[in-house]
Amino acid sequence: MTNVKRVYSFGNKQAEGDSTMKNLLGGKGANLAEMCLLGLPVPAGLTITTDTCTEYYENNCQLPATLMDDVWAAMEKVEEAMGMKYGDGDNALLVSCRSGARSSMPGMMDTVLNIGLSSATIPGLIKKTNNPRFVYDSYRRLIMMYADVVMDKAEGLDKNIRRQLDEMLDEYKHAKGLKSDTELTTDDLMILADKFKKKVKEVLGTEFPDDARAQLEGGIKAVFKSWNGKKAVSYRRIEGIPDDWGTAVNVQAMVFGNMGDSSATGVAFTRNPATGDNIFYGEWLVNAQGEDVVAGIRTPSPLNDDTKNEQNKHLMSMQEQYPVIYKELCDIRTTLEDTFKDMLDIEFTVQEGKLYMLQCRVGKRTGTAALNMAMDMLEEGRIDEKTAVLRLDPAQLDELLHPIVNPSSESKATPIVKGLPAGPGAAVGKVVFSAEDAVALSRKGERVILVRKETNPEDVEGMRVADGILTALGGMTSHAALVARGWGKCCIVGAGTMEVNETTKTATIKDSDITIKEGDIITLNGTKGHVYNVSLDLMDATENPRFQKFMSMADKFRRMGVRTNADTPEDAKTARDFGAEGIGLFRTEHMFYGKGADEPLFILRKMILASTDEERLAAINELAPFVKRDMKGTMDVMNGLPVTFRLLDPPLHEFAPHTAEKQAEIAKVIGISAEEVAVRVDKLHETNPMMGHRGVRLGITYPAITEMQFRALLEAAAELTKDGKNPMPEIMVPVTCDVNELNISKVIFNKVKKETEEKFGMEIPCLYGTMIEIPRACLLANRMAETAEFFSFGTNDLTQMTFGFSRDDVSGFMQDYLDKKVMPADPFQTIDQDGVGQLIEMAVVKGRNTRNKLKVGICGEQGGDPASVEFCNRMGLNYVSCSPFRVPIARLAAAHANIKQS
Amino acid sequence: MTNVKRVYSFGNKQAEGDSTMKNLLGGKGANLAEMCLLGLPVPAGLTITTDTCTEYYENNCQLPATLMDDVWAAMEKVEEAMGMKYGDGDNALLVSCRSGARSSMPGMMDTVLNIGLSSATIPGLIKKTNNPRFVYDSYRRLIMMYADVVMDKAEGLDKNIRRQLDEMLDEYKHAKGLKSDTELTTDDLMILADKFKKKVKEVLGTEFPDDARAQLEGGIKAVFKSWNGKKAVSYRRIEGIPDDWGTAVNVQAMVFGNMGDSSATGVAFTRNPATGDNIFYGEWLVNAQGEDVVAGIRTPSPLNDDTKNEQNKHLMSMQEQYPVIYKELCDIRTTLEDTFKDMLDIEFTVQEGKLYMLQCRVGKRTGTAALNMAMDMLEEGRIDEKTAVLRLDPAQLDELLHPIVNPSSESKATPIVKGLPAGPGAAVGKVVFSAEDAVALSRKGERVILVRKETNPEDVEGMRVADGILTALGGMTSHAALVARGWGKCCIVGAGTMEVNETTKTATIKDSDITIKEGDIITLNGTKGHVYNVSLDLMDATENPRFQKFMSMADKFRRMGVRTNADTPEDAKTARDFGAEGIGLFRTEHMFYGKGADEPLFILRKMILASTDEERLAAINELAPFVKRDMKGTMDVMNGLPVTFRLLDPPLHEFAPHTAEKQAEIAKVIGISAEEVAVRVDKLHETNPMMGHRGVRLGITYPAITEMQFRALLEAAAELTKDGKNPMPEIMVPVTCDVNELNISKVIFNKVKKETEEKFGMEIPCLYGTMIEIPRACLLANRMAETAEFFSFGTNDLTQMTFGFSRDDVSGFMQDYLDKKVMPADPFQTIDQDGVGQLIEMAVVKGRNTRNKLKVGICGEQGGDPASVEFCNRMGLNYVSCSPFRVPIARLAAAHANIKQS
Repeated sequence: MTNVKRVYSFGNKQAEGDSTMKNLLGGKGANLAEMCLLGLPVPAGLTITTDTCTEYYENNCQLPATLMDDVWAAMEKVEEAMGMKYGDGDNALLVSCRSGARSSMPGMMDTVLNIGLSSATIPGLIKKTNNPRFVYDSYRRLIMMYADVVMDKAEGLDKNIRRQLDEMLDEYKHAKGLKSDTELTTDDLMILADKFKKKVKEVLGTEFPDDARAQLEGGIKAVFKSWNGKKAVSYRRIEGIPDDWGTAVNVQAMVFGNMGDSSATGVAFTRNPATGDNIFYGEWLVNAQGEDVVAGIRTPSPLNDDTKNEQNKHLMSMQEQYPVIYKELCDIRTTLEDTFKDMLDIEFTVQEGKLYMLQCRVGKRTGTAALNMAMDMLEEGRIDEKTAVLRLDPAQLDELLHPIVNPSSESKATPIVKGLPAGPGAAVGKVVFSAEDAVALSRKGERVILVRKETNPEDVEGMRVADGILTALGGMTSHAALVARGWGKCCIVGAGTMEVNETTKTATIKDSDITIKEGDIITLNGTKGHVYNVSLDLMDATENPRFQKFMSMADKFRRMGVRTNADTPEDAKTARDFGAEGIGLFRTEHMFYGKGADEPLFILRKMILASTDEERLAAINELAPFVKRDMKGTMDVMNGLPVTFRLLDPPLHEFAPHTAEKQAEIAKVIGISAEEVAVRVDKLHETNPMMGHRGVRLGITYPAITEMQFRALLEAAAELTKDGKNPMPEIMVPVTCDVNELNISKVIFNKVKKETEEKFGMEIPCLYGTMIEIPRACLLANRMAETAEFFSFGTNDLTQMTFGFSRDDVSGFMQDYLDKKVMPADPFQTIDQDGVGQLIEMAVVKGRNTRNKLKVGICGEQGGDPASVEFCNRMGLNYVSCSPFRVPIARLAAAHANIKQS
Repeated sequence: MTNVKRVYSFGNKQAEGDSTMKNLLGGKGANLAEMCLLGLPVPAGLTITTDTCTEYYENNCQLPATLMDDVWAAMEKVEEAMGMKYGDGDNALLVSCRSGARSSMPGMMDTVLNIGLSSATIPGLIKKTNNPRFVYDSYRRLIMMYADVVMDKAEGLDKNIRRQLDEMLDEYKHAKGLKSDTELTTDDLMILADKFKKKVKEVLGTEFPDDARAQLEGGIKAVFKSWNGKKAVSYRRIEGIPDDWGTAVNVQAMVFGNMGDSSATGVAFTRNPATGDNIFYGEWLVNAQGEDVVAGIRTPSPLNDDTKNEQNKHLMSMQEQYPVIYKELCDIRTTLEDTFKDMLDIEFTVQEGKLYMLQCRVGKRTGTAALNMAMDMLEEGRIDEKTAVLRLDPAQLDELLHPIVNPSSESKATPIVKGLPAGPGAAVGKVVFSAEDAVALSRKGERVILVRKETNPEDVEGMRVADGILTALGGMTSHAALVARGWGKCCIVGAGTMEVNETTKTATIKDSDITIKEGDIITLNGTKGHVYNVSLDLMDATENPRFQKFMSMADKFRRMGVRTNADTPEDAKTARDFGAEGIGLFRTEHMFYGKGADEPLFILRKMILASTDEERLAAINELAPFVKRDMKGTMDVMNGLPVTFRLLDPPLHEFAPHTAEKQAEIAKVIGISAEEVAVRVDKLHETNPMMGHRGVRLGITYPAITEMQFRALLEAAAELTKDGKNPMPEIMVPVTCDVNELNISKVIFNKVKKETEEKFGMEIPCLYGTMIEIPRACLLANRMAETAEFFSFGTNDLTQMTFGFSRDDVSGFMQDYLDKKVMPADPFQTIDQDGVGQLIEMAVVKGRNTRNKLKVGICGEQGGDPASVEFCNRMGLNYVSCSPFRVPIARLAAAHANIKQS
């Protein structure tokens, strides 16, 4: 690794990297380089590669030996570009040190600003800027950040030095009767800096470094270290970012937005990230540093007229205050969109009237915004259809399918408070005031609204589980807004008339007698920013014609079919409306419901409890009309589309009556004692029912049960055909592990088919296939395909057997497995491509070796998971099948998969 | 298939086949051909190939179109050789039609004799033989057999015609006051033949065919049909004979042992099949057909002095009665042993002073006989060591390891009855009088002795499950004797003073007041033929030095090691005595026993029920000394041999106290309420514990449990080393599905190892490996082997997961699966090479790709199953591990496997 290039310079309209090098330079570093190449005003700097981060961890958290030499060499170029010198007594260059991974992880890793301030450089800087207050304010900020990030966290001391310094600051202000930081004088700041340094030594046992070079080296190490910080690891797990990607480090010349009223800082989106509207959308603060905007501590001003809203319309926009600089920024917006052909999220600083670009990246957006931008940019001719389709992440569709507040319900209610519409959609739930409470309550199955003064990265787990998020402070680019939008979550920020007390767990609304307490139910309209202290009706948001158009476009790029798992005519209807092209899984056992003695569940129980073949047959015959009715109804709804009926699957014991009352009831009807019923139920008990007498195994033991289902299905199909319909039934035998199981049932199938065809005087086309959900079926798929005309992967069971994980019991250890990184994701959520994937691939290849045109699908719950859909496309599956509400997601995911793979 | 040769002729010292063609001609056909080539006197005939049987079934039970043409062409050669003509009015040839599969299936398929008798041939035959009684006796036999086999069974009518004809015969004799068949006159037989033919027409609806050619075609079809008869299928399942081998049909000129006192028939073994002694051993009957000897209806005479015993010494031997023919037979014996170099089972007939050989095949033998013959023939220089090793089937070893009656116990008891020692060894059990009762009682876990007048093929299932078999009739070559010997089962036949009444389910002993009733416990000494109506002590039979010598010889040909599964020092000792070369599986959880509050099980329960880490740690520390003690004791016994310790495996719930009493007891000790104990136990409950929180998963959640086991093991090893011993511990992590599980535990292992090595000041060599029992571990074996230094296949669990069959619940459907031929064998008994085998092969190949010298073994229960051992050898495994008593079987099986494969 000695000749590897670890450090890339940028600045002065030149750069060693560019925007294609995100993997190596991180998103931030690559785009800083690109902006330089575009001739934009970027403070010079250098990027240390992500590979160096990997080296750092492989090398037991040591920097490569020659790294700092390379850094100092690159720093000379920065000095030249900026006309300053790092550590110099007269004209000192200050730098920031920031993380920058391949994929944005906002706020999850550490940053240190103002590096380079020391007893050697401060006097010269004061002289140069003639602004001693600014210099000392920067210095006390450096001490606070550095002590926290570099000395406390990165060294693993975890003494919480930051909180202690914050408290010192508050005490000092309190003693002096000061309300805000801006009231602190130069002298105050000098005193505080001294106090801080003493405290640091006292708490952490080391001096705050007064050497600029040592400061920078510490900063670099701290950024690398923060890649494995708790927050970052937790975020990566949620976002599915691999741990071994590593982060780059960007060392960049500092520019200051806090050098007085001719300085400012801001963040902007080239289009509205919540709605997708083609307006320049941003916030800024005069005389502030960047963190002040993002942290949500001060409510920022609008960038321009387009950004004004109820909360900020009284504040002066940049368009009004700095029209020339605003114009320059608008030109940059155009350059960037022309270059990147996407909506960008930018950060800028104005230092004494000069504009600097600090960051640009593809902006996060809501699903609605993603949809609108994709369609707009397509219409603008910026992107083609394929690119437009790729612009909407399938996971985001979930959000478009999310409910909104029913307008008629909302019209009768009055909002108790209004805030910024940071995440559209709606949510109703119980109020909690901490992330921990959100997690705890949601584990109980409750819908939760997380209410906070403001959120910070420590809150992410709670935000994840919440249905909605409401904060008192913060703007559209605050932490809460960014995170919520990334997840398509309903969110309202900056609800300024709400005062949150996290200790008493209450929120009071100013100028009213309303207090929200923990456990109260509230409704958020995230699209408008309105909060109601009642539970309002929600409704679907899928009627949008633009959405329909987008989906049709996506369908053009899709190779795989998308079916649905539905067990009733009603579900089938819903799914067909969502675009399902058939039913991939109709679970026969789901039709057994009802309470009366003449309803299916009761009759099924009679069948299960039968002690002789005669009793069993009588119950089976009684059951047949119900089975036929639902099968017929479903095929009717799906007229002209295939419907896959799975034979009765689960262990019979699941349906047996388990309470004494129910046993007594059925005993009376069957005419045996309740004790006898109890004995028969007990006989059905199995130690491991998931691997017990179920699926095709029932059919082998009780062929009459199978025969009844075949007959019901074929007669239903025949009757529909007589009525001029076009039923397309497919029969699916579950839990098979050997072709002989299929063959034995096939004999019955053929017999019943012949009889039914004779009875109705017609041919009844019906495919005969099997669910592939037992590892052995995959291993012997070549034989299975001798009889099976199609395969459908039951990935739930296949995952259970392949891992030896009982889905019912896995909660006892899955969290430990995820926490300890045994596996990257819950294999019941997303297909385990490494293991289960091998079996699937084997089954597809072997099956098609036997039967060239074998139709292969998947009907496990992972069928609606985008990563799994992508895998299925790669495997050459014919279709995926998922729950009705996930059909659009699967359609889009299938399109994405096919585009990416071709 | 038109040009295929389907018919092979033999006779007149010539033959188209030979003894190497068993697969095509069946064992009988191939050896008949060979005997012709050896110049022995064999009645001429023809063999229809086994492939023709397969054709017959593939062709929907139709004979190939040209087959009968080929048969008639071959029949012309038979006519020529025998100087007779089939169907001829003056000089008619009669033939038999018999089955003959690759592997002997005695009595399991059908035979028809005397084919060719008709109104056209009878007069000429009477004239020629001048023996009308013989002719009509043969005719009524033909009608009875043909009606049963060809017309009733093969046509699937199943009217039980045979029983009806038997009853007619009995009635006729009764009406005439006759006691035996031999008293029937020619007229009686003519009348009976007529009555039989009318009855056949009446019951079966068709005439008995009077056309010789039609008779032969019917006979051939019936033999093919009997391949799929119930008896044959059942036998094949037990013996593991594939259904698609098919049977050959042998059509052979009839010779008659029932043509008066110069005619006879007999069966013999070239050596004693029970003991292996090198004596000519056989039985014969004057004026009888072959079936009479085998059926056990008459007690046969001894062949010679060597064959005389208490039961038959009063009868005249062939050696005495026909010394010349006996001499000829002795020469044939020598020729055959010189040719086949093995003990042969022969059938012969003497027709009016002329000897004919009807059959020769390698004889079935007891394990003891197999051992002795192998060692004798080796010493005689007939065979080499390799062949000698192959002569003892590993499955037969079981019998050598079977108990015998303890002589000191037997010396105090008096036999109630004596019979022929047909199957050596001993058995104690409850008496039953039918095969059905034997099956039923054995299913309840009882040891069963099946007592019958005589056995027939319908009894095989009951004989299979019985520990011992006792019959009143029959000789050493009777059905009971043959079958029992084949299975190495203790058996006494021909206990002549015992009268069995199968209706009242009693057996009375003549000249005594002893009556054996159903359920009585009796003891059989099958080596002596003695029966006791008490329960005697049994003892081991492995001290035989010849056995030891044989096993050492076998070991020379073995590549794989043989280890044992043992959980205590005592088991380890037993296994070492049986030749185990290490322990392949030490199940840590098996050491948790005892009732007291200071014993391991109780302390384990405290650990399981702990609600805090502190409580758990306290219990773990309390448990450590017990774990260490057993580990140390076991390594001490196995000094110098490897011992594989598996970490705690089963779900904790299994060990939890489930009764209210036990819960109360532990509640008192822990100091919590019994209700709280119940709640904690309930929390541990899992729906599918086999796929739940067990194995390595426990260690991931509770690392302290793992750490304790590592420490106990490493300290035990260190202490033994200090004592000058040579412990060879191997640690095995169970239920793994991902290398990360191994890695996480390995960190703890390394830490404990370092600490222990420092504490004892020595290196402690210890392999770190994993059990491969989850399909995913096979699929990702390349990764597993990055950390695992050895693999050991846990084929029980691997079979469970691969099939999705819960071992605890499979009894609910496994019998149906075997009955309906879904699978050929219970995969928990013998490795499913098709499915599970693929995973094993994959794991071996992938594992060794990563780690060249990866040691691989198997420790599932199939490790002692010969077929599975053969598979393991083929897969290149390093060792198999099985229960102590199966170690010799595994050693021999491993030798066989290696010889066969090299």
